[in-house]
Amino acid sequence: MKKTNNENYALLVDFYELTMANGYFLTDKKDEIVYFDLFFRNVPDKGGYAIFAGLAQVIEYIENLRFTEDDIAYLRSKNRFDEGFLAYLKDFRFTGDIYAIPEGTVVFPGEPLITVRAKAIEAQLVETFLLLTINHQSLIATKASRIMRAAGERVVFEFGTRRAHGPSSAILGARAAYIAGVDGTSCTLTDKLYGVPASGTMAHSWIQIFDSEYDAFYAYAKLYPDNPTFLVDTYNVLESGVPNVIKVVKEVLWPQGLKKCNIRIDSGDLTYLSKEARKMLDAAGLTDCKIVVSNALDEKLITDLLNQGASIDAFGVGEKLITSKSDPVFGGVYKLVAVEKDGEIIPKIKISENVAKITTPHFKTLYRFYDKATDKAFADVICVHDEIIDENKEYLLFHPEFPWKKKTVTNFRVRNLRKPIFLNGKKVYTEPSLEEIRAYCQEELASLWDEVKRFDNPHVYIVDLSKKLWDIKMSFLKKD
Amino acid sequence: MKKTNNENYALLVDFYELTMANGYFLTDKKDEIVYFDLFFRNVPDKGGYAIFAGLAQVIEYIENLRFTEDDIAYLRSKNRFDEGFLAYLKDFRFTGDIYAIPEGTVVFPGEPLITVRAKAIEAQLVETFLLLTINHQSLIATKASRIMRAAGERVVFEFGTRRAHGPSSAILGARAAYIAGVDGTSCTLTDKLYGVPASGTMAHSWIQIFDSEYDAFYAYAKLYPDNPTFLVDTYNVLESGVPNVIKVVKEVLWPQGLKKCNIRIDSGDLTYLSKEARKMLDAAGLTDCKIVVSNALDEKLITDLLNQGASIDAFGVGEKLITSKSDPVFGGVYKLVAVEKDGEIIPKIKISENVAKITTPHFKTLYRFYDKATDKAFADVICVHDEIIDENKEYLLFHPEFPWKKKTVTNFRVRNLRKPIFLNGKKVYTEPSLEEIRAYCQEELASLWDEVKRFDNPHVYIVDLSKKLWDIKMSFLKKD
Repeated sequence: MKKTNNENYALLVDFYELTMANGYFLTDKKDEIVYFDLFFRNVPDKGGYAIFAGLAQVIEYIENLRFTEDDIAYLRSKNRFDEGFLAYLKDFRFTGDIYAIPEGTVVFPGEPLITVRAKAIEAQLVETFLLLTINHQSLIATKASRIMRAAGERVVFEFGTRRAHGPSSAILGARAAYIAGVDGTSCTLTDKLYGVPASGTMAHSWIQIFDSEYDAFYAYAKLYPDNPTFLVDTYNVLESGVPNVIKVVKEVLWPQGLKKCNIRIDSGDLTYLSKEARKMLDAAGLTDCKIVVSNALDEKLITDLLNQGASIDAFGVGEKLITSKSDPVFGGVYKLVAVEKDGEIIPKIKISENVAKITTPHFKTLYRFYDKATDKAFADVICVHDEIIDENKEYLLFHPEFPWKKKTVTNFRVRNLRKPIFLNGKKVYTEPSLEEIRAYCQEELASLWDEVKRFDNPHVYIVDLSKKLWDIKMSFLKKD
Repeated sequence: MKKTNNENYALLVDFYELTMANGYFLTDKKDEIVYFDLFFRNVPDKGGYAIFAGLAQVIEYIENLRFTEDDIAYLRSKNRFDEGFLAYLKDFRFTGDIYAIPEGTVVFPGEPLITVRAKAIEAQLVETFLLLTINHQSLIATKASRIMRAAGERVVFEFGTRRAHGPSSAILGARAAYIAGVDGTSCTLTDKLYGVPASGTMAHSWIQIFDSEYDAFYAYAKLYPDNPTFLVDTYNVLESGVPNVIKVVKEVLWPQGLKKCNIRIDSGDLTYLSKEARKMLDAAGLTDCKIVVSNALDEKLITDLLNQGASIDAFGVGEKLITSKSDPVFGGVYKLVAVEKDGEIIPKIKISENVAKITTPHFKTLYRFYDKATDKAFADVICVHDEIIDENKEYLLFHPEFPWKKKTVTNFRVRNLRKPIFLNGKKVYTEPSLEEIRAYCQEELASLWDEVKRFDNPHVYIVDLSKKLWDIKMSFLKKD
């Protein structure tokens, strides 16, 4: 996998990671092994599931994590850091273990998406980059998944580059959207770096630069006769745009035996205009001309358009996808869950006054249960890291907050969702290609019941703790 | 000014810029000089003003814009581009003119923030990067300005790195927030690259790794006795956090003659906890201990906290600033407004069915009117590029949509807000330092009436067209 764009992100850390790391270095915590879990508490847009994305960039970051001379000189200038610590940073390499769920997996609140087991300094220094990368890409993949669901079998293009929050929001946002199923992007660099198919044809400026809309379409069709897309709303969609397309297609494409083309409507009443345009195109014999619409679309507007019977073959989705406008924060957090003393794992808990913020202690893993009859996933269980679930026995599921809610299940298969990614600083994971991740994401979505995928009031998917893990957590809560 | 982080952004373009550019290359539009305006239509959060930011990154991009061999090879692989065009890209340099408003300026909808005068291909290729950069940084600067206004004289830190939309959203978002007045950031790389002061002390993990909260505070105070900040909500703010701070400050700081310190409360009822903590600290003699609060804050919550009499000296503002959560899109657009034929400027208009989307044609400039008696800005007037406004004569302002709304003004001074940035591809602009931009932004805000700066239902600042420009626009509308 290619390096994103030559960046050095060693100092893309919250400053407190560095003051803490320097503190660990100067106390007896320097070589202490710790465990951190990365998890999130709520699905954006009150949805029923999220799509995990961004792991490839985490892997790239970990493999390339070096502090340059320039970085060290900057840190020295802050007058906060011990020279021994700066010397240590000079030779810094990540030497710990990382476990994670593969990209494209459907995930739920509270699940350990990533676990870092490393010396305290190392685990602390990688926190910020891991969070910002996973939060960003999981946010956009989750939003894109909703949009794809609304669009059904229709094609969706990601068109949001110009409204993204800086370059990497555009570049990596388009990558995340592709994982969740969009068909392509307008962002050329995402195509070059990651192979997400980029496409695009003309802006209003193309039409304005020519003496007339007809001239602009004619010139374009001459240049790109192979399935061109004509933007028809510069002046008037039905009175000018569509008639000019019909004329040009008949004059330029048909004589070459070419039938395929598209019109794009970027403003106005998309339902009305698409229906009328369809009629005009069909009446003129342009039945192979597809209709693309764009203009501040998201899953709600797409649903509305289709409910109103709009005649649309493809959607261009911009600002509301690339910023996840209706809910632009994926609230992943990174919490200490255990330390090691003399090789033994000592679970740690953060007991907040806010019950929802109490962490689940210990080094954990995650199983997904599938019903053998339907092949649908019906529950996830967070377990202590070395627990094995026997598919041949019945299993007791119970709600971790309301443990009287319980259910004994049989005829299931389980899948451990987590993989070792780094062990002792060495990558041990064979990274799937982006196409493989994308295909896997579709399988993942197919394994969910529709009720979980609803936009409003989705069914809450079951995420339980194993009895062993629950007992450990309770032992802490009772202690206080 | 330093190069952001070694990126190559030549291909950070919407793919249609390239298909259009290739089209211009292959038609008679290759050397046509065109004018594009970058402007926005609505202030985010229904505010009364926006802060223009991102120009430094635009300048850096224009100066470094080169297509590498690798970029060309990628483009060739798309089978869409003429070999002559690819050869042209190999030697591509931006050779046109760019006019812009300085960063940190208060701006309003419809104003030409940037004008690009260049050959059609060049003007088209820079569109995407200009939009995404200005949209992003103006969004965050505008949001930060609102948050600073809510916080009044109190200190505000930008803490949002982990919730940003990828690396550049974090790095450049912190830069934009600093322009608008925040006092510092958690993002270390923004400090190294741009000199925005980074700070930060400890996370909950620091406290959890030690055997007790007291031990953690004690170790920290020993390491960083100079104005340390203690995070007091890991277990219980009032029963554990604050008492442990008092103990450690008296044991470690006071014997060294040090009084300054801070506590940070990151959860719970911030009003109640800050008031109670203040009483406890004062009663113990820690009157020099400041209180910092954080946890999903924005201008609304800060206003509420202060209205409730919370005892707060500083705010850490995270996800709601770095994503501009309540309105995460700054809708800047880039529209063709003129072409040149034989050295003559021919205005161009886009006449949309949607009246708000009709563009104002021609190569323009922008004057701001200040009342000499109060020194407050009271109107902006968009003019034809070579118009001069005589401060010694009276001037007739009139509303461009409702021209019967008019007012004759006297005793004013005017300032042309726009500067030439590039002429014939050469930078002619002396860039201010980030500190200068930040100070200028404060002057700009001071020149606005409070009514324009209100969060809700702000007074709509007057942005008019000159009579000459209005007549030109009307001549197009009457033509149709």
